[in-house]
This record gives sequence, structure tokens and C-alpha cells, in this order.
Amino acid sequence: MLTDLFTPSLLHTLDIAGVFVFAISGALLAVRKNFDVFGIVVLAEATATGGGLVRDVIIGAVPPAAFTDLAYLITPLTAAVLVFFLHPEVERINRAVGVFDAAGLGLFCVVGTTKAYDHGLALPFAALLGVVTAAGGGVLRDVLANEVPSLLRWDREIYAVPAIVGAGMCALLIQFGALNPVTSALSAATAFVLRLCAMRFGWRAPRAWNRSSTRAERE
Amino acid sequence: MLTDLFTPSLLHTLDIAGVFVFAISGALLAVRKNFDVFGIVVLAEATATGGGLVRDVIIGAVPPAAFTDLAYLITPLTAAVLVFFLHPEVERINRAVGVFDAAGLGLFCVVGTTKAYDHGLALPFAALLGVVTAAGGGVLRDVLANEVPSLLRWDREIYAVPAIVGAGMCALLIQFGALNPVTSALSAATAFVLRLCAMRFGWRAPRAWNRSSTRAERE
Amino acid sequence: MLTDLFTPSLLHTLDIAGVFVFAISGALLAVRKNFDVFGIVVLAEATATGGGLVRDVIIGAVPPAAFTDLAYLITPLTAAVLVFFLHPEVERINRAVGVFDAAGLGLFCVVGTTKAYDHGLALPFAALLGVVTAAGGGVLRDVLANEVPSLLRWDREIYAVPAIVGAGMCALLIQFGALNPVTSALSAATAFVLRLCAMRFGWRAPRAWNRSSTRAERE
Repeated sequence: MLTDLFTPSLLHTLDIAGVFVFAISGALLAVRKNFDVFGIVVLAEATATGGGLVRDVIIGAVPPAAFTDLAYLITPLTAAVLVFFLHPEVERINRAVGVFDAAGLGLFCVVGTTKAYDHGLALPFAALLGVVTAAGGGVLRDVLANEVPSLLRWDREIYAVPAIVGAGMCALLIQFGALNPVTSALSAATAFVLRLCAMRFGWRAPRAWNRSSTRAERE
Repeated sequence: MLTDLFTPSLLHTLDIAGVFVFAISGALLAVRKNFDVFGIVVLAEATATGGGLVRDVIIGAVPPAAFTDLAYLITPLTAAVLVFFLHPEVERINRAVGVFDAAGLGLFCVVGTTKAYDHGLALPFAALLGVVTAAGGGVLRDVLANEVPSLLRWDREIYAVPAIVGAGMCALLIQFGALNPVTSALSAATAFVLRLCAMRFGWRAPRAWNRSSTRAERE
Repeated sequence: MLTDLFTPSLLHTLDIAGVFVFAISGALLAVRKNFDVFGIVVLAEATATGGGLVRDVIIGAVPPAAFTDLAYLITPLTAAVLVFFLHPEVERINRAVGVFDAAGLGLFCVVGTTKAYDHGLALPFAALLGVVTAAGGGVLRDVLANEVPSLLRWDREIYAVPAIVGAGMCALLIQFGALNPVTSALSAATAFVLRLCAMRFGWRAPRAWNRSSTRAERE
């Protein structure tokens, strides 16, 4: 198993750190949407574990990790409690939250790709599920909050591209038998840095070609 | 199997009663949203069977009960037809529908917890899936109708708390080997009464602490 | 296996054609919603493979076909690229897209029913999953785009009825041992023609009975 390459405790710690920052982003959106304390908890849990949940259901790894490891239940709960009491402070360090979220993105796209490959998926699909692991929780968060998923919106910095690059690097490394803790970390770091740059420099993805000439624009 | 504790026919009857009242709530929302007759049927089916469907997919009990037992298909259909023709009358007895919905909530959180435990999940996750069984259909209903899930909203009476209490009681009873038809019914009844009180006395859950001082409030 | 009745290559070609036109409809909605290029790709993939994905998860056929056959990944991608560059032209042939979408609807409801039956589901549920296969992708598309699913809306031509008729015919043919390539094609063609008529003559499904007398109407 590729996942044996890593010290289990280190990988698990990183994973839980990713869960925590994703949960913070879910809880903050719940506060902004004026949800009650259970809305905050639900959105924290969904954001943190949604991507991995979808991946595990698709690869047939049921019950999913989110339903067998207590850390996946308690960590988002802690994040929700923290945001419940300290959200003005958390909002103030929103940029720091963005940095952690980028770290979670990098980590999850690599972990997701590796786990999907270990369950027998071909590499292109493993990489796709890596992207789903990294970005799926945020999409679920936005759907539950009845907002257009920020992943899809033109007026947000790119989020999918860093995940695609990280998951793609990871898949190529597996293809050439070169995946090890160092190259894994490198893939995650690449996605992380790309996302940081996207936030810092406002990188956006283009909309459809020649958009202004369409009927839709004038509506 | 814990589910052997119950007379199958009694449990099944209660289960179908829960499916029926949940379907009524879905069909009524569809009428309010001005959906056509198929929209009414889809929302009735999704509300009634959505929570159990998600639970069964997560615990790996596929095909889910909703796709093996005709009662789960026909009962929501009947509710949809009823609402299609009689919705003004059903609206008028909306309070009665609320009572039945509370009964469904109580029943489903206990049935869901028991079934998840029988499929090998640890007790905290079994209780979590009990809550998902009870509240998931309503969330799916609201997402399909493009509304903010009423489960998450601050301005609605608490819905998750009664389910959490009922599922938690059920999990504790399993833990101490004390689950039997009587204590099961007691767990369901506790959730039922809590939800009734929440509706009667307008119990709401708090929003985030010190909310008024945040930027979000002034938006 | 019933699916052995068909020349694999012919069935696969038709299937991919259905995936392609569904992806076009997803990509066009993404352009109208002003999504960026990744939003276009995500909506194309979700619309094209969403229905089959839900079916495969429910019948336990994991990993789903969408994650084992590269054609399901590349075809929507191609459709997304096409729409990205040529969306004004594609919009102009919107009626043609509607015809292809109707063809996809007819094909998918028959393929979905057959596959679900092959996985051991009873015929009513197999037909239900046929409808889910045909219409589920469009619902997922609309939920992701934060719109009321057009399947549920009163002011859209009927979409579910043709799928229900096609899937129901297919189920009846299986029941009487009369399913073969010719009768299968006939089921798909019936759904296709019904949907074309619905678009041509503006067929709509009724809303709830006596609707104007309700409180909802005056809101």
C-alpha cells in the first residue's frame, strides 16, 4: 500500500490539521449566513469531511473514514465551538485561515489520489478523486448554505487548478514509481504554493471565450 | 441483531408511518414552491427516503432499503397524490402534520442508530447516522427546492437537538446492554416530546456568541 | 446479463453520445451563470455522469462506470472545451441540443433500467433507477448552479414523464421476457419522441389541484 510509505502518525496529524482548517471555513460561512449553533456544527462537519466521504463512497471504502475515526468527528466539532465563541477574532485572522485552507487543499489532493489508487482506480481517476477530496467539502458547504459554489465562480481566485496540479503530480509520480514521502510532500507543497499565489496575486480562471458577444451577458 | 428485538411488523408499520409524514412535508413544500405534479412526487420521495438512503450508502447496505421494499416507493407516492388533491386541507392541519413529523423524527433517529450499530459502526457514529436518518431527508428536500435547509436556520425551532438526544439515548442504552422495545420506544418518545415542546414554546438554538459585533451583522 | 443482448460497441457509442449531449447542456448553463472555465468543466462532468454515478452507488457497482472508463471523463471535457470556445454557436443551435438531450434521455432511461435489473433490483426499482440515470444529472447540474431543478418546475416542458414511460416500457419488456435490441430501442425511441413532442407542443404537467384557492398562490 502506498499509504504505508508514510509514518501513520505524521500522516494522520496532517490529515486532522486539514480537517480542522476546512471545518473553520465551514463554520465561518455558517456564522455569516446567520445559522444557529447546530447549523455551524453541520457546516463545519460537512466542509471538513464531505470530500473524503464522497471519495470513500465512490471507491467502495465503506463505512468511510469519517465514520470510523473519532478524530474526524471531534475535530470539526472543536472548530465549530471555537468559531461559535471567537468568530470575530477568527474573521480577523481570515488571511491566516486562508493559508491553512491552502495547506489542507494541498494535503488532501495528495492523500485522496493515493487512497483512490490504493483502492484500484486507474491513475486519471485517482487524480480526479484527489481533486474531489480536496474541493468536494467546500462545494458541499456552499450547496448546503444555498450559495453558488465558490469553486465554480469566475470572481474567485482559482481553487481547482492547484488541486489538479497537486493531484496530477502525485499521479505522475505513482506512474513512474517515484512516489515517496519527499515527493508526496513536494506535490502537496506545489498545490499549497500555487493556491497561496492565487490568493496573493488574485489569479482567476478565464470565463467562456468571447463572452461579451453572447446574449447571456446582456441579460 | 438488535433489530430482532422488535416485532418486525410493528417496527415496519411505524417506519412506514414516519415515511408517510415526511413525504407529506416534502409534498407541501413542493406545492408552496409551485412545482408540478412530478416535482411534488420527487420532493415527497426525497424527503421520506433521503435520510435512510444516505445512511444505507454510508454503512454499505446496498441496495438501500428504499430500493428493495415497495412500501418505501408507494407510501410517498400516496402522500404526494393526497397533497396534490387536498393541499388546502392538509395545510389547514399543518399543526397535525408537525406532530406526525415529530413522531417520524423520534422514530427515525432510533431506527437509524440501531441499524447503523448492527452494521458494525461504533456507537458515536451510529448515533450520528441516527441523526442523519432523521434529519437528512428534510435537508435533501430543502436543497432540491433551492432553499436554505430549515435545519440550519436560526429562525426555526430546534430540530437537530431532539434527534441528537433520541439517538444519544439509544446509543447509551446499547452501550449498557439495556436496549429493548420499551427503552427504544422511550428514546423515540423523548425525541418526539422534545420536538413538540420546541414547536409549542418556540425553542431556538443560539446563534454565534457576540454576533452583533461582527462585520457580517452590519452587511 | 441483459446487457449482453447488445453489441457492446454500439451500446457504448450510444452511451457516450448521451454523455456528450448532457455535458453540452451542463456547460451551457455554466456559461449562462458566468462560471469560469473550471466551473464549465465541473458542470459538464456532473451533468453527464451524475445520474449514472448515483445509480451505480445505489446498486453497489463501485467504483462507478464514470470512474473506470476514460471515455466518461474525456467526453464531457471535450464538450466543455467546445462550449468554452463556441458557446454562441452552440446557443444558436440550442434546439438541436434539445433534440440530442432528448435522445440521451431516452437512451439513459433504458440503459439505467437494464443495468439496475442486472444488479438484482426488482423491476419497479430498476425502472426508478432508469429515471434517476436519465434525469439525475440534470438535477445535480441545477443544484450545483444554485437553481431550482428544472425537472421540478411547473413552467418547463415535462422531462420526467418521457423517462418514466421509457423506463416503464423497458421494465415491462423484461417482465415478459421480451427485451431485445429491437424492443429496447423502441423503449428509448418512445421516450425520445415523447420528449420531442413535449418540447414542440409545450406540454406541461399540472400543478396541485385547485391551486388558486391556497394561501401560497397569493404570496
